[in-house]
Formats: sequence, structure tokens, C-alpha cells
Amino acid sequence: MKIETAKHSGFCFGVKRAIQIATETAQNNKKTVTLGPIIHNPQMVEFLMKKGLHSVDDIKDITDETVIIRSHGITAENYKLLVERGLNFVDATCPFVKKAQEYAQKLTDDGYQLYILGEKDHPEVEALLSYIDDSAVVITNPDVDFKKPTQRKVALIAQTTQSEEKFEGLAKKLIHFSEELYVVKTICNATILRQETTRNLSQKVDIMIVIGGKNSANTTRLAEIARAEGCKTFHIETEGELKDVWFKDVDNVGISAGASTPNWIINSVKEKIKKINETK
Amino acid sequence: MKIETAKHSGFCFGVKRAIQIATETAQNNKKTVTLGPIIHNPQMVEFLMKKGLHSVDDIKDITDETVIIRSHGITAENYKLLVERGLNFVDATCPFVKKAQEYAQKLTDDGYQLYILGEKDHPEVEALLSYIDDSAVVITNPDVDFKKPTQRKVALIAQTTQSEEKFEGLAKKLIHFSEELYVVKTICNATILRQETTRNLSQKVDIMIVIGGKNSANTTRLAEIARAEGCKTFHIETEGELKDVWFKDVDNVGISAGASTPNWIINSVKEKIKKINETK
Repeated sequence: MKIETAKHSGFCFGVKRAIQIATETAQNNKKTVTLGPIIHNPQMVEFLMKKGLHSVDDIKDITDETVIIRSHGITAENYKLLVERGLNFVDATCPFVKKAQEYAQKLTDDGYQLYILGEKDHPEVEALLSYIDDSAVVITNPDVDFKKPTQRKVALIAQTTQSEEKFEGLAKKLIHFSEELYVVKTICNATILRQETTRNLSQKVDIMIVIGGKNSANTTRLAEIARAEGCKTFHIETEGELKDVWFKDVDNVGISAGASTPNWIINSVKEKIKKINETK
Repeated sequence: MKIETAKHSGFCFGVKRAIQIATETAQNNKKTVTLGPIIHNPQMVEFLMKKGLHSVDDIKDITDETVIIRSHGITAENYKLLVERGLNFVDATCPFVKKAQEYAQKLTDDGYQLYILGEKDHPEVEALLSYIDDSAVVITNPDVDFKKPTQRKVALIAQTTQSEEKFEGLAKKLIHFSEELYVVKTICNATILRQETTRNLSQKVDIMIVIGGKNSANTTRLAEIARAEGCKTFHIETEGELKDVWFKDVDNVGISAGASTPNWIINSVKEKIKKINETK
């Protein structure tokens, strides 16, 4: 049995940076917390918790700890609260997320009706929306929940981990309904490359194992992409979920992992698959 | 036999305005010329010539006449020449063409690689190009002559009389190749409506007669649109070109006319068709 891992799997620049900022801050200051899980990977969050870096969901629960703003960014309201309460904070928002936030604000200020391809409840989109007025429209799947713009000047951005294909699909729909359309592909390059290599790999293997948090939007998207290629696909968080029966009559296994999946999890999944193969 | 004329056929706002400016100027000043034909309709140009309003192709041939800048606008070089030579001139450029020129300049200044859907040799596009640097790309048919952008920031505008369908087709292609795409639909509304009513009419008639200058880009486009609907279509300038044989076994005739086709030509075509029908 051959096991191949898609290029660009695992930690992206923004995640590496956030974890580095968080661990360094925690080393210097025992009283450090992250506002919400630093990344969408329960195993990594647990690992950091063991090192003393806890996650807090509500600013009200913070007393005098140093706060890490996680890679997805925070809402304008939470930012205001941090400042008002005089809390120490370190901003680990991914620079690409920050750029999307800046575009959202600028385009809204310039009079565009803003469209965002993304998930309404995802912290990145929640943060994006909090910086702009309520004329913005969030579309999750342009084939299903498309709404026509109500203004003549329209702009389109995306949650940084969305799929390029869906983004282009939405842009194509908007072209017909707007006199001016400003499209900024705020999907980060690592996401585009990871999706592309996952798509290519899933075309040539028998099954795909996609590793990452069940709460990770970008990992979920990788599994969707592999399934769309007609490949039998399993989305797991750890090697514990692997089942022997998946590998029956399988010659080629593809592996891909989300931006928030640490290497040690990818490696232990690979090792477990090898063991399953040996006992076939 | 039923004859139906597509709504929004004939003179558009910009053409009416240009002719009004030209005739009023000529009334007040016997020595008035237009730089190039005022509109793309040989019959109307001839009619105006009889009223003393001549067309001159080269500024060098102008001595002391007042110059009318035609509806399509003029190039930056010609504009400079008019000023340098101290000639009197009246600007009858269509305001929608002017707006496209302003967008071309602004978008190029803002660092976008400019794409223009249009015909390279059309005076409107020649004028557009003259106001900007030479990184601009002119595409006539996105299915045939598409070129990938070489820059990451791309903008798209159109010659004001292009088809919305082709424009959207080009925008859809550009989306994939650009990080930032700024699409401004500079096609004028009268063009969109005229094309739409022509398309609808050509779906329900046996033949379409499209009236307008053979040198008129917008009229040529109307004929293309009717043909694309599978309708037998004839592009004529005057009633003299109508042939009895076209109307054999025909019950429904559709008529459409370009933005530069005067009403008296449309009416004489209708009358001639009625006469042909009477002698069937």
C-alpha cells in the first residue's frame, strides 16, 4: 500500500505565527490566556493547555491575565472591551485575516455593498462583520443561498480559508447584477495551494484521509473538495478514529491536513495506517 | 404580415445630444466642421452635409472652422492639437463615453492593468487608449482573443456599445487570473435595453431587419445578437437594400435599429416592407 501526503498539508504561516506568539508570551508570563481557542484544533489546544496556556471564551472571565488574540481575529466589540478594561493583550491575528478586515472596512467606507463568502458563525467572519455596517451579505454556498445585491456598487471578499472555486462562482453571479464590482481574492495562498494539491491527490488515490479539527472550516473544506472528486474520504482528528475496514482492498491512500493540524498528528496517523496495512 | 419594431431602437441620448450640439453650432457659425463623422450613419452624415456641416478627418485640414468633437470622443493627441492650434471647439462627446474615459484614466493611475472589451480600431476605443499607458489590453471576443493578465490588480471596462453577455464572459475569465479585479460596466443603459429587446423580438419573428450604418459597431452587434438567436437576419442601411425574396413565406418581421439610425430611415424601411407585402 502506498501512502502519499498532499503538499502544503498542515500548519500555515498564520497558525505557526499565532502558536509561536502564544507560547513565547506564556513563557514570559505565567498568567496568559487566549480569547477562544488559539486555532481550530482541539488536540493542539489541549497540548498548549498542559503547558499552562488556557483558553477563555468570555472577556468577563479575564481578571489580570495577558490576552492572546487568536489567529482568526476578534470582533470590534471585544477589542473595545479589552482596551476599556485596560487588559494587556498581544495580537496574533493572522496577517491575511487582518488584510481581509482592512479591505472589509475600506470597501464599506467607499460605499460598496460588501459580499463575504464565508460562514456566518465562524469567528473570522464574525470579526469581519463587526468592523462594518450591517449592509454586508454573507454567502456560504452561492449555488444555494445567493441573494441579489440591492446596491449598484458591490464588493466581494472571502473568509481566508474558503475555496477558490466557490469564490469565483459567487463573483460570476454578482457580475450580472452590479454596475461596479470590486473583487478581492482574500483567500490566503496557502489555502489555495493546499486545496489544489488535495484535489489533485484525491483524483489518483483510492481513499483520502483528511486530518484536522472537526470545528476547522478549512479542514472541512478539504474533505468536501476530495469528495467532490468522487474519492472516498474520511475526516478525522486523530489516529484513534482510523478503522481497519477502510483500508480493505485499498492500494493508494492520500493524506491531507488542515492549516491548524500539527505535524505530530499527521505523523501518528501515517504510522497507524502503516500498522493497519501490515496486519491486513 | 405583422411588423414589429424592437423598443429602444434608434437614436440614443448621446447621439441626439451630439446632433443637437452640432446643428445648433452650425446654425450660429457657418464655418463648422466635425472631426470625423459625427455619428456612424452615412445617411445622417450626408443629410447634415447638405445643411453645411462637413466632416474632416485630419486636424491639419482645419484652418479657422469651429470643430465639433463627435459622440465617440477624440484622442488625447488630437485634443492637444486642437488646443495648440488655438482652434474653437465644442465637445459633443457622449457623457457615457466620457465616463468610460475617466474610469480608464483613474483605474490606470491607481495601478490596475486595464482590460477593455471593444474594437481596437473603433474611434471610441482609440480615444480611450490614448488617455492611458500602453499596458492596457483590448479584447474583442473573449472566446477567441483572451490574454491572461500579467499584473495582479486588474480592471475591466467596455466600449459603451458592447454586448453585456460578452462583457460578463470576459469578466468571468479574468476572475480566475487576478487577485484584485475591478469591473465597471461602462456599457450604456440604452445599449443594454436595445440589445435585450432585439434579442427578445428575434426569438419570436421569422426574420429580423437590423437598420444602421455598416460602420456602426452597435448596429453590427444587434445583428449578431439576432443571428445568435437563430433568426434569419439582414443588416441594412436604407430601404433600398430590401429584397422582395426575403419576405416570401414570412408572417412576422422584426425591426431593430442602431443608436445612430434616424427615425426617418426606420420609417421608410417599414413603409417599404408594407409595400413589398402588398405586392406578394
